[in-house]
Amino acid sequence: MENRTNMQIAMQLGAGYGIDSGAWRMPGGDPTAYTNMDSYVKLAQTAERGKIQMLFMADTPALGVDLTNRPPQSPMDPMLALTVIARETERIGLVATLSTTFNDPYNVARQFKALDVISHGRAGWNAVTTSNQAAAANFGSQVASRTERYERAHEFIQLVQALWGSWEEGAMTLDVENGIYANMNKIKPINLGGKYLSSHGPLPIPPSEQGQPVIFQAGGGQEGLELAGLYASGVYASPYDIPSAKAYREVVRQSAVNFGRNPDEVKVLPGFIPSIASTEHEALERRKHLDGYTDLTGKVSYLGAMLGVPLSFDDIDRPLSPELRKYANANPQDPRSPRALELVMRGMTIRDVLAHGVINYHPIIAGTPEQVADFMEEWYVSGACDGFAIQPDASFDGVSAFVDQVIPILQKRGLFHKDYEGTTLREHMGVSYQYGLRL
Amino acid sequence: MENRTNMQIAMQLGAGYGIDSGAWRMPGGDPTAYTNMDSYVKLAQTAERGKIQMLFMADTPALGVDLTNRPPQSPMDPMLALTVIARETERIGLVATLSTTFNDPYNVARQFKALDVISHGRAGWNAVTTSNQAAAANFGSQVASRTERYERAHEFIQLVQALWGSWEEGAMTLDVENGIYANMNKIKPINLGGKYLSSHGPLPIPPSEQGQPVIFQAGGGQEGLELAGLYASGVYASPYDIPSAKAYREVVRQSAVNFGRNPDEVKVLPGFIPSIASTEHEALERRKHLDGYTDLTGKVSYLGAMLGVPLSFDDIDRPLSPELRKYANANPQDPRSPRALELVMRGMTIRDVLAHGVINYHPIIAGTPEQVADFMEEWYVSGACDGFAIQPDASFDGVSAFVDQVIPILQKRGLFHKDYEGTTLREHMGVSYQYGLRL
Ligand SMILES: Cc1cc2nc3c(=O)[nH]c(=O)nc-3n(C[C@H](O)[C@H](O)[C@H](O)COP(=O)(O)O)c2cc1C
Ligand SMILES: Cc1cc2nc3c(=O)[nH]c(=O)nc-3n(C[C@H](O)[C@H](O)[C@H](O)COP(=O)(O)O)c2cc1C
Repeated sequence: MENRTNMQIAMQLGAGYGIDSGAWRMPGGDPTAYTNMDSYVKLAQTAERGKIQMLFMADTPALGVDLTNRPPQSPMDPMLALTVIARETERIGLVATLSTTFNDPYNVARQFKALDVISHGRAGWNAVTTSNQAAAANFGSQVASRTERYERAHEFIQLVQALWGSWEEGAMTLDVENGIYANMNKIKPINLGGKYLSSHGPLPIPPSEQGQPVIFQAGGGQEGLELAGLYASGVYASPYDIPSAKAYREVVRQSAVNFGRNPDEVKVLPGFIPSIASTEHEALERRKHLDGYTDLTGKVSYLGAMLGVPLSFDDIDRPLSPELRKYANANPQDPRSPRALELVMRGMTIRDVLAHGVINYHPIIAGTPEQVADFMEEWYVSGACDGFAIQPDASFDGVSAFVDQVIPILQKRGLFHKDYEGTTLREHMGVSYQYGLRL
Repeated sequence: MENRTNMQIAMQLGAGYGIDSGAWRMPGGDPTAYTNMDSYVKLAQTAERGKIQMLFMADTPALGVDLTNRPPQSPMDPMLALTVIARETERIGLVATLSTTFNDPYNVARQFKALDVISHGRAGWNAVTTSNQAAAANFGSQVASRTERYERAHEFIQLVQALWGSWEEGAMTLDVENGIYANMNKIKPINLGGKYLSSHGPLPIPPSEQGQPVIFQAGGGQEGLELAGLYASGVYASPYDIPSAKAYREVVRQSAVNFGRNPDEVKVLPGFIPSIASTEHEALERRKHLDGYTDLTGKVSYLGAMLGVPLSFDDIDRPLSPELRKYANANPQDPRSPRALELVMRGMTIRDVLAHGVINYHPIIAGTPEQVADFMEEWYVSGACDGFAIQPDASFDGVSAFVDQVIPILQKRGLFHKDYEGTTLREHMGVSYQYGLRL
């Protein structure tokens, strides 16, 4: 295993509020964060103060949620938000998600490479196939079969990389004296095409300080693993515990090996939600405060279903009754259920059990900075991951709490770098230089 | 005719250098301007100092030129460049060209509305159909028939406007106390579709300070005129003289009337290239200096063809011989040829005739600030235009020369505003508020 001293951290910015649907209501936060670039910039600058390797924007081109009580989940536009941030930060990486299903390779290649040049080599592209029906409907189509989406994704990513490489290094001469702007022998069409897509090129954008953007990947089963193994330097993952995380990381690494790559070149970053306070009790109070901003009816019945017992909102401030405890069991299909069962059995109220985050998509630690660091260390040193994609519960103070309180502990323990390795995302991540298609 | 005191000026930024292909070599300029956002920002801030209503980015998604001796013609990416500028300026409008042929309406609606919100109501979209074969090849297609391109453009623009309107005004409540983020009765799907395109929506972006971006249009004969009359508040045009400009403006205005609109709502902005110096002689020297950076062989023979006489590069520093003058005549198909003939007949050398800009795509005035202002005044007061889309010869000093020397004259003559009318592009242009589709 490679040296475990360079934990990779991606800070997720989302719609500007944090992952908790009540976060937009937190006193001291900015309810307008979604539309207010100043809020994004502030979060980005805070993350950069913590030497966090990259910002990360998940994205689905559709309004996936009812906004009556909660904000959107995606930014207004990830490329424009990261462009704003590029100019108001110096070092931090800028990773945006863009779908290979609902875009054209030329446009994607152009915008990411422009962002890479504008940011002096800090751009990354999370290439996803998007299986969301609402997104498909926005483009007048329906979700294609997995096979078709992934075949297209391969063509798409290869075209984008070929376009990136079509303006070769050293092509831009800028020889004012002799009037030679560029060497056209080094700027060539790609003329590549497949079953779904083709492009002629060249893309008239020179290399950035890191050559071309770093590729990320997320989800998609066996087909997704092939994308990861072939192209990705970073994988955004969603395991819930160390055994499943380890297993997933192993298959990602094996996929890289299958395609002739060094597995250390692919960093697996599980999503993780820290809720930080000075005591565990306060952290749980923070989470209950956030929960208090939203309707928990659905979550209570979801927890009941998870444990195989009927639960309704009226039960929320009581522990599970002794009779129901007899019937409660951990659903073997759901990695989150053993922990839920354990907390219920300790006699906690349902509200407290929920505050522990047992039914969230990603693992949650509600606790002190030490407890958060302990969680991260345990996963990291056991080889369950190469770092984390952090989703702050509420961003406005959650990012600074992580940066000011957790990062120093990780640094003291020798797990996280003390400063950026260089100026580019590739340097921060410790992944190899690549320009154009990998041959 | 409306009051002629609010001349509209769009400053074109192009690839950052200016329209002259030798501009990148000018001493004092920035040869890296294409990739250097600081250069773009500086130009934008200079234009804003001059109260210029808007910046304008033409764009074709293809490398249309050989870069051996000259820079690209389009920016790396117009949306990203304008996003950078949005954050580093306060008032100036931000208009980008994006093709209706090589994009998806949802993506275009999203990026322009995000830019509009980020810039607090300063975005504009120049919707073009792009008849360029190199562009088509970058998207794996061929140039479709004009009919098809314009049918698609109608559907495209209507879908974009409908998506813009799908998040109604007042939908975003941000009621922290009661936990009401938005009123979902005011955020509705559009469910619109046509022959080529459809989209479900909604687009989850609230209105900007100007509601939605301003629409521009350029080119395309009768079909283009229909687009202009139906949707555009600004038309980028390329007439060469006052009679043709007047005629073109009249048909644009008539097209607006045909579609039930007030013709004053459509501003026609011909392209115009000022070359400014303290004397006419110096201005011509400036142009000859710029010409000296490029190979004029092609231009000399082009001039010969225009006048119906054989000319070669060897003739460049001589006037036309008396014998050839007998044969020279103004090609009636080319509005630029009478002026070319006149200058030739005055006995100027070919180099000097070319320096007057007689074969450029847009009219050129090489002269003093007064001469430039005189030209603009004559066109404007005679109703040949509503303003201009300025293409500086070389931007690095051409924009500031225009702002510091020409603008004050236009202001003194009461032709150009002394300050911005408000904070939004619609206010600067004096065009009506519109939100969603015009019904
Ligand atoms: C952790 C994680 C994050 C993801 N983020 C996104 C995203 O931001 N946008 C998106 O469109 N899809 C995202 N996906 C979805 C994947 O692209 C993929 O469509 C999904 O996993 C469904 O699998 P399938 O594509 O094999 O049907 C994500 C998946 C995972 C596991
Ligand atoms: C002044 C002017 C500027 C134009 N600017 C652009 C541009 O920036 N990008 C582009 O793709 N097309 C541009 N066009 C081209 C038009 O979209 C149109 O394709 C062209 O006029 C050819 O006409 P057609 O579409 O009817 O074939 C421009 C046209 C004119 C007259």
